[in-house]
Amino acid sequence: MSIYGSTNPAPDTSLADGVQRFAAVVELVPEKEREYRELHAEVWSSVQKRIADSKMRNYNIFIAELAGKKYLFSYLEYLGTDIDADKAAMAADPETRRWWTVTDPCQRRIDSTNKGEQWMGLERVFFQLA
Amino acid sequence: MSIYGSTNPAPDTSLADGVQRFAAVVELVPEKEREYRELHAEVWSSVQKRIADSKMRNYNIFIAELAGKKYLFSYLEYLGTDIDADKAAMAADPETRRWWTVTDPCQRRIDSTNKGEQWMGLERVFFQLA
Repeated sequence: MSIYGSTNPAPDTSLADGVQRFAAVVELVPEKEREYRELHAEVWSSVQKRIADSKMRNYNIFIAELAGKKYLFSYLEYLGTDIDADKAAMAADPETRRWWTVTDPCQRRIDSTNKGEQWMGLERVFFQLA
Repeated sequence: MSIYGSTNPAPDTSLADGVQRFAAVVELVPEKEREYRELHAEVWSSVQKRIADSKMRNYNIFIAELAGKKYLFSYLEYLGTDIDADKAAMAADPETRRWWTVTDPCQRRIDSTNKGEQWMGLERVFFQLA
Protein backbone atom coordinates (compact mmCIF):
# COMPACT_ATOMS: atom_id res chain seq x y z
CA MET A 1 0.00 0.00 0.00
CA SER A 2 2.67 2.52 -0.96
CA ILE A 3 1.48 6.08 -0.41
CA TYR A 4 3.53 8.77 -2.13
CA GLY A 5 3.47 12.53 -1.63
CA SER A 6 5.67 15.58 -1.18
CA THR A 7 7.52 13.98 1.74
CA ASN A 8 7.55 10.48 0.26
CA PRO A 9 8.49 10.75 -3.40
CA ALA A 10 8.04 7.62 -5.50
CA PRO A 11 11.40 5.88 -6.08
CA ASP A 12 11.60 6.92 -9.74
CA THR A 13 10.96 10.59 -8.95
CA SER A 14 13.14 10.95 -5.86
CA LEU A 15 16.35 11.83 -7.61
CA ALA A 16 16.25 15.58 -7.13
CA ASP A 17 19.83 15.40 -5.86
CA GLY A 18 20.90 12.55 -8.15
CA VAL A 19 21.20 10.13 -5.23
CA GLN A 20 19.28 6.92 -4.61
CA ARG A 21 19.00 5.83 -1.00
CA PHE A 22 18.70 2.16 -0.06
CA ALA A 23 18.07 0.43 3.25
CA ALA A 24 18.05 -3.30 3.91
CA VAL A 25 17.91 -5.82 6.75
CA VAL A 26 19.36 -9.23 7.49
CA GLU A 27 19.34 -11.30 10.67
CA LEU A 28 22.60 -11.63 12.61
CA VAL A 29 23.56 -15.09 13.90
CA PRO A 30 23.96 -14.39 17.64
CA GLU A 31 27.00 -16.65 18.06
CA LYS A 32 28.73 -14.75 15.25
CA GLU A 33 28.18 -11.24 16.57
CA ARG A 34 31.75 -10.73 17.76
CA GLU A 35 33.19 -12.06 14.50
CA TYR A 36 30.85 -9.84 12.47
CA ARG A 37 31.82 -6.78 14.49
CA GLU A 38 35.53 -7.53 14.19
CA LEU A 39 35.30 -8.00 10.43
CA HIS A 40 33.35 -4.77 9.98
CA ALA A 41 35.61 -2.68 12.18
CA GLU A 42 38.40 -3.37 9.67
CA VAL A 43 36.78 -4.11 6.32
CA TRP A 44 39.36 -5.21 3.75
CA SER A 45 40.56 -2.32 1.60
CA SER A 46 39.88 -4.38 -1.55
CA VAL A 47 36.23 -4.67 -0.53
CA GLN A 48 36.02 -0.97 0.28
CA LYS A 49 37.48 -0.13 -3.11
CA ARG A 50 34.88 -2.28 -4.90
CA ILE A 51 32.07 -0.56 -2.96
CA ALA A 52 33.41 2.84 -4.02
CA ASP A 53 33.94 1.68 -7.62
CA SER A 54 30.28 0.61 -7.66
CA LYS A 55 29.40 4.24 -6.79
CA MET A 56 28.12 3.50 -3.31
CA ARG A 57 28.87 5.97 -0.55
CA ASN A 58 27.77 6.89 2.97
CA TYR A 59 27.39 3.19 3.76
CA ASN A 60 26.28 2.58 7.34
CA ILE A 61 25.40 -0.70 9.07
CA PHE A 62 23.63 -0.62 12.44
CA ILE A 63 22.69 -3.40 14.84
CA ALA A 64 19.27 -3.82 16.48
CA GLU A 65 17.78 -6.35 18.88
CA LEU A 66 14.07 -6.88 18.24
CA ALA A 67 11.89 -9.45 19.96
CA GLY A 68 14.92 -11.43 21.10
CA LYS A 69 16.61 -11.58 17.69
CA LYS A 70 19.49 -9.50 16.40
CA TYR A 71 19.32 -7.74 13.06
CA LEU A 72 21.66 -5.71 10.88
CA PHE A 73 20.16 -2.62 9.26
CA SER A 74 22.04 -0.98 6.37
CA TYR A 75 21.67 2.45 4.79
CA LEU A 76 23.65 3.53 1.73
CA GLU A 77 23.58 6.01 -1.10
CA TYR A 78 24.05 5.13 -4.75
CA LEU A 79 25.38 7.73 -7.18
CA GLY A 80 25.28 5.70 -10.38
CA THR A 81 22.56 5.08 -12.91
CA ASP A 82 22.56 1.25 -13.19
CA ILE A 83 22.37 -0.36 -9.78
CA ASP A 84 21.95 -3.85 -11.24
CA ALA A 85 25.17 -3.55 -13.22
CA ASP A 86 27.04 -2.07 -10.27
CA LYS A 87 25.81 -4.85 -7.97
CA ALA A 88 26.78 -7.45 -10.58
CA ALA A 89 30.29 -5.98 -10.72
CA MET A 90 30.55 -6.42 -6.95
CA ALA A 91 29.28 -10.00 -7.17
CA ALA A 92 31.87 -10.77 -9.85
CA ASP A 93 34.78 -9.35 -7.86
CA PRO A 94 36.95 -12.17 -6.42
CA GLU A 95 37.86 -10.19 -3.29
CA THR A 96 34.22 -9.32 -2.57
CA ARG A 97 33.24 -12.96 -3.11
CA ARG A 98 35.93 -14.02 -0.68
CA TRP A 99 34.65 -11.42 1.83
CA TRP A 100 31.15 -12.83 1.53
CA THR A 101 32.40 -16.34 2.33
CA VAL A 102 33.29 -15.02 5.79
CA THR A 103 30.40 -12.58 6.31
CA ASP A 104 27.49 -14.64 4.94
CA PRO A 105 27.81 -17.30 7.68
CA CYS A 106 27.35 -14.48 10.24
CA GLN A 107 23.95 -13.70 8.73
CA ARG A 108 20.63 -15.48 8.46
CA ARG A 109 18.73 -14.42 5.35
CA ILE A 110 15.16 -13.33 6.01
CA ASP A 111 12.64 -15.60 4.23
CA SER A 112 10.92 -12.83 2.28
CA THR A 113 14.18 -11.52 0.78
CA ASN A 114 14.27 -11.29 -3.01
CA LYS A 115 15.68 -14.35 -4.71
CA GLY A 116 19.43 -14.13 -5.22
CA GLU A 117 19.89 -11.41 -2.59
CA GLN A 118 21.30 -11.69 0.92
CA TRP A 119 19.70 -8.54 2.36
CA MET A 120 15.99 -7.70 2.35
CA GLY A 121 15.41 -4.30 0.76
CA LEU A 122 13.14 -1.92 2.66
CA GLU A 123 10.50 0.43 1.31
CA ARG A 124 10.81 4.08 2.27
CA VAL A 125 7.81 5.93 3.74
CA PHE A 126 9.32 9.36 4.48
CA PHE A 127 12.12 11.54 3.16
CA GLN A 128 13.27 15.03 4.01
CA LEU A 129 16.57 16.07 2.48
CA ALA A 130 16.97 19.43 4.22
CA MET B 1 30.73 -5.46 22.90
CA SER B 2 31.45 -2.45 20.66
CA ILE B 3 34.44 -3.06 18.39
CA TYR B 4 35.90 0.05 16.76
CA GLY B 5 38.38 0.31 13.92
CA SER B 6 39.16 2.11 10.69
CA THR B 7 35.75 1.18 9.25
CA ASN B 8 33.85 1.60 12.51
CA PRO B 9 35.02 4.80 14.15
CA ALA B 10 33.89 5.35 17.74
CA PRO B 11 30.98 7.82 17.89
CA ASP B 12 33.10 10.64 19.29
CA THR B 13 35.75 10.27 16.59
CA SER B 14 33.49 9.77 13.58
CA LEU B 15 33.05 13.43 12.74
CA ALA B 16 35.58 13.69 9.94
CA ASP B 17 32.91 15.38 7.82
CA GLY B 18 31.21 17.18 10.72
CA VAL B 19 28.11 15.01 10.48
CA GLN B 20 26.65 12.65 13.07
CA ARG B 21 24.55 9.80 11.72
CA PHE B 22 21.71 8.32 13.75
CA ALA B 23 19.49 5.31 13.18
CA ALA B 24 16.56 4.21 15.32
CA VAL B 25 13.66 1.78 15.30
CA VAL B 26 10.12 1.64 16.63
CA GLU B 27 7.33 -0.89 16.11
CA LEU B 28 4.46 0.07 13.80
CA VAL B 29 0.93 -0.72 14.97
CA PRO B 30 -0.36 -2.86 12.06
CA GLU B 31 -3.86 -1.37 12.08
CA LYS B 32 -2.35 2.11 11.79
CA GLU B 33 -0.07 1.43 8.83
CA ARG B 34 -2.21 3.26 6.29
CA GLU B 35 -2.63 6.27 8.57
CA TYR B 36 1.11 6.37 9.27
CA ARG B 37 1.93 6.21 5.57
CA GLU B 38 -0.60 8.94 4.72
CA LEU B 39 0.75 11.24 7.43
CA HIS B 40 4.36 10.73 6.32
CA ALA B 41 3.64 11.20 2.62
CA GLU B 42 2.61 14.77 3.48
CA VAL B 43 4.37 15.77 6.69
CA TRP B 44 3.20 19.17 7.91
CA SER B 45 5.46 21.99 6.77
CA SER B 46 5.66 23.29 10.37
CA VAL B 47 7.10 19.94 11.45
CA GLN B 48 9.53 19.89 8.52
CA LYS B 49 10.71 23.38 9.43
CA ARG B 50 11.39 22.37 13.03
CA ILE B 51 13.40 19.34 11.86
CA ALA B 52 15.51 21.61 9.64
CA ASP B 53 15.85 24.22 12.41
CA SER B 54 17.18 21.44 14.67
CA LYS B 55 19.92 20.88 12.05
CA MET B 56 18.69 17.47 10.96
CA ARG B 57 18.85 16.54 7.29
CA ASN B 58 18.70 13.54 4.98
CA TYR B 59 15.95 12.08 7.16
CA ASN B 60 14.68 8.75 5.86
CA ILE B 61 12.13 6.38 7.40
CA PHE B 62 11.79 2.84 6.03
CA ILE B 63 9.34 0.05 6.83
CA ALA B 64 10.28 -3.59 7.51
CA GLU B 65 8.35 -6.73 8.40
CA LEU B 66 10.37 -9.00 10.67
CA ALA B 67 9.08 -12.19 12.28
CA GLY B 68 5.47 -11.13 11.69
CA LYS B 69 5.81 -7.65 13.16
CA LYS B 70 6.16 -4.35 11.35
CA TYR B 71 8.90 -1.90 12.24
CA LEU B 72 9.93 1.60 11.22
CA PHE B 73 13.65 2.25 10.76
CA SER B 74 14.94 5.81 10.62
CA TYR B 75 18.24 7.21 9.41
CA LEU B 76 19.15 10.87 9.70
CA GLU B 77 22.14 13.17 9.78
CA TYR B 78 22.75 15.83 12.40
CA LEU B 79 24.82 18.88 11.55
CA GLY B 80 24.76 20.63 14.91
CA THR B 81 26.91 20.30 18.01
CA ASP B 82 24.29 19.82 20.77
CA ILE B 83 21.85 17.08 19.87
CA ASP B 84 20.19 17.15 23.30
CA ALA B 85 19.39 20.86 22.98
CA ASP B 86 18.18 20.45 19.41
CA LYS B 87 15.95 17.53 20.39
CA ALA B 88 14.62 19.53 23.34
CA ALA B 89 13.73 22.40 20.99
CA MET B 90 11.72 19.94 18.89
CA ALA B 91 9.98 18.55 21.97
CA ALA B 92 9.06 22.09 23.05
CA ASP B 93 7.60 23.06 19.68
CA PRO B 94 3.77 23.14 19.81
CA GLU B 95 3.39 22.00 16.18
CA THR B 96 5.77 19.07 16.66
CA ARG B 97 3.94 18.11 19.86
CA ARG B 98 0.65 18.20 17.99
CA TRP B 99 2.21 16.04 15.25
CA TRP B 100 3.32 13.49 17.83
CA THR B 101 -0.24 13.22 19.20
CA VAL B 102 -1.21 11.74 15.83
CA THR B 103 1.96 9.76 15.06
CA ASP B 104 2.70 8.25 18.49
CA PRO B 105 -0.51 6.14 18.49
CA CYS B 106 0.71 4.56 15.23
CA GLN B 107 3.81 3.31 17.01
CA ARG B 108 4.55 0.82 19.75
CA ARG B 109 7.65 1.76 21.71
CA ILE B 110 10.19 -1.06 22.04
CA ASP B 111 10.74 -2.03 25.69
CA SER B 112 14.48 -1.45 25.72
CA THR B 113 14.18 2.11 24.39
CA ASN B 114 15.87 4.79 26.49
CA LYS B 115 13.59 6.43 29.04
CA GLY B 116 11.81 9.49 27.64
CA GLU B 117 12.40 8.48 24.02
CA GLN B 118 9.97 7.07 21.49
CA TRP B 119 12.52 5.50 19.13
CA MET B 120 15.23 3.01 20.11
CA GLY B 121 18.64 4.28 18.99
CA LEU B 122 20.85 1.78 17.16
CA GLU B 123 24.58 1.24 17.47
CA ARG B 124 26.61 1.44 14.29
CA VAL B 125 29.02 -1.38 13.38
CA PHE B 126 30.32 -0.21 9.97
CA PHE B 127 30.82 3.07 8.15
CA GLN B 128 32.32 3.92 4.77
CA LEU B 129 31.81 7.50 3.66
CA ALA B 130 33.26 7.21 0.15
